[in-house]
Amino acid sequence: MEKIVTIGMIKEAAETIKDSIKRTPVIECPTLFEKTGNRVFFKLENLQKTGSFKIRGAMNKIMNLTDNEKSHGVIASSAGNHAQGVALGATALGIKSTIVMPGTAPLSKVIATKGYGAEVVQVGTVYDDAYEKACELQKETGATFLHPFDDPYVIAGQGTIGLEILEDIEDVDIVLVPIGGGGICSGIAKAIKSLKPSTKIVGVEPANAASMMEAVREGHPCTIKTSPTIADGIAVARAGELTCKMISKYVDEIVTVTEDEIAKGILFLLEKSKVLAEGAGASTVAAVLSGKIKEKDKKVCCVISGGNADINAVERIINKALILEGRKAEINVELQDKTGELEKLLKILAENKANILRINQSMYRADAKINSQVATIAIECKDADHRDSIINKIKEVGYHLM
Amino acid sequence: MEKIVTIGMIKEAAETIKDSIKRTPVIECPTLFEKTGNRVFFKLENLQKTGSFKIRGAMNKIMNLTDNEKSHGVIASSAGNHAQGVALGATALGIKSTIVMPGTAPLSKVIATKGYGAEVVQVGTVYDDAYEKACELQKETGATFLHPFDDPYVIAGQGTIGLEILEDIEDVDIVLVPIGGGGICSGIAKAIKSLKPSTKIVGVEPANAASMMEAVREGHPCTIKTSPTIADGIAVARAGELTCKMISKYVDEIVTVTEDEIAKGILFLLEKSKVLAEGAGASTVAAVLSGKIKEKDKKVCCVISGGNADINAVERIINKALILEGRKAEINVELQDKTGELEKLLKILAENKANILRINQSMYRADAKINSQVATIAIECKDADHRDSIINKIKEVGYHLM
Repeated sequence: MEKIVTIGMIKEAAETIKDSIKRTPVIECPTLFEKTGNRVFFKLENLQKTGSFKIRGAMNKIMNLTDNEKSHGVIASSAGNHAQGVALGATALGIKSTIVMPGTAPLSKVIATKGYGAEVVQVGTVYDDAYEKACELQKETGATFLHPFDDPYVIAGQGTIGLEILEDIEDVDIVLVPIGGGGICSGIAKAIKSLKPSTKIVGVEPANAASMMEAVREGHPCTIKTSPTIADGIAVARAGELTCKMISKYVDEIVTVTEDEIAKGILFLLEKSKVLAEGAGASTVAAVLSGKIKEKDKKVCCVISGGNADINAVERIINKALILEGRKAEINVELQDKTGELEKLLKILAENKANILRINQSMYRADAKINSQVATIAIECKDADHRDSIINKIKEVGYHLM
Repeated sequence: MEKIVTIGMIKEAAETIKDSIKRTPVIECPTLFEKTGNRVFFKLENLQKTGSFKIRGAMNKIMNLTDNEKSHGVIASSAGNHAQGVALGATALGIKSTIVMPGTAPLSKVIATKGYGAEVVQVGTVYDDAYEKACELQKETGATFLHPFDDPYVIAGQGTIGLEILEDIEDVDIVLVPIGGGGICSGIAKAIKSLKPSTKIVGVEPANAASMMEAVREGHPCTIKTSPTIADGIAVARAGELTCKMISKYVDEIVTVTEDEIAKGILFLLEKSKVLAEGAGASTVAAVLSGKIKEKDKKVCCVISGGNADINAVERIINKALILEGRKAEINVELQDKTGELEKLLKILAENKANILRINQSMYRADAKINSQVATIAIECKDADHRDSIINKIKEVGYHLM
């Protein structure tokens, strides 16, 4: 029997899961109106239970199992948001869940998943090891395997986000949705195209893992070579069968975003909208910020799919984004090796209101003159113009920048 | 005539400002249920327009001005959230606003305030300079001076948050509100005690600037000596007259939080609830996390008053919080000055899964032996136990930690 997702299934899913999930807020972003000429809204699924939308699909799938299936429990392989969604969904219904993760999964994810009541099995080093083990355990136990995206009930669950967007943003014109395996995008696209077909649906993939773009182009899923991405939640090498079909049919356009664009998206959301998104969640904002939407005077909704970012990674990403925006910089200045030389340089920095973050002085550089040292100074600036003016001032005084 | 705030004024304020503000979301925090035994909710005024609750009071005050008063514009002195609230409030109503800021105000605040349509005057170096200049300009122009907290209309505007809390959290038992000058706390306390007197209201001040605690104790506002605090939004040296009276009457308890507790509160909100709060905004969560609420089995609401934190400061605060939680550490290890010694130490760190952030080796320490160097290594750990086990392992192998 061909697998399909109908608008009826999505409406039923909304009824099924409504007491188990949060109705997440939609907020408007006035700064993006100034920047783009569009009214831009964020659907905050990063504030969803478990920190991502995954609980919707997992809950809908589990609640649609037969009593016999439920009695055998559920199993999934994931090192990410799907793990937490399945764990909480199963536990909330009193069903046993087993989550297989690679041995390299971050401790925080393991703890969170256990915290939601799952039994966690760790095996191997990559996702494929975990998947294989999950299939094996599935056969042994008779548990139901919960696919993270290529399942009609899972897709219908994610589609409930589309219903909420239509209710909360009257006359929405364009909706941007992240694409990994394609579950959330298929569901939302089906929901919105069924009820308001004039709405444009834009899928967003990281340029480093654009497997759905390739699948749609080829007409079927194919395994692509991916590069690491900070949008790890949507780093999928092979799109789903069902999701590929649905996205080909219901999504108007797929755009890609670079790592730097995603980093800037995360910083933007934090600074302007006061919310933390993971890379996947910020990808839609990255698309808007980097000019991928050409329309004007429209109502645009970016789905912020999740917020489960490792805090140490967040620190690094913010740092990178600040450097990209010229708000932090590292300069290398050749100094004569005599008393007071560094102080003179620092005086220029102080006069120009550059805040010093770190400083190092080296006499080990092959490209420095004898009797020279190289000072490496990390500074905080107001913006790229401020940074450039500081660098120019240093050059004007006669210093050699390396 | 004695200034008073009635529940009627707060209800009217809600009507007056409802189209000008966001109805901010309330989210529940399951992690705090596990930690405290209470159901804890966050009222997210950091997602309010201008990034803080201040727009409520400013808008209510301005909309209650006479046409004649409106024609002369409004003026305020502030380097923070009040500036942005007044600017946006006035601009939205087509009224001229002048904001006086100290010359040292962060550029981001100046730009934001101008962006909301205010004329910004910068003068002097501290708040008092700005206040003086604002009074002077007020006399010259006949503009209405908008006090940041000690004004019945401003307090009534902030009180609308209390009405929303009662609507959104059925049977709330305890509400925590930050106290700076006391405007938001007075308003919320009046609203809630009028409609549901059994609710306990807890005010939260930074230990470094607990002027309201002192004012309530003394029975009148008095100027206290403050220390710098990361909760700069509530660093107020002297409470208001009206707010002191209202808080004495309607607030059950005032608690204080330390700088480290506030830092942990900011990290917690970011990591667990995916929202960015400024120090003042996180102070209520800091109070809950640090065990200031002794009750169990209650519904507790923390008001997250704002999210306008400087992103560079956020980075430092998160860093500090991670160190406090044992998730980052710096260790100093004495090494013999011969080939391969550092590598041996790093092997131990790698085997124990400590990620290295920064490393430095020095032969300039007076307390190191001749033929020794001291390696200073910053590491990332999973938690305090992990950090301690790494340190113990290094000691066991025979290294001397300095």
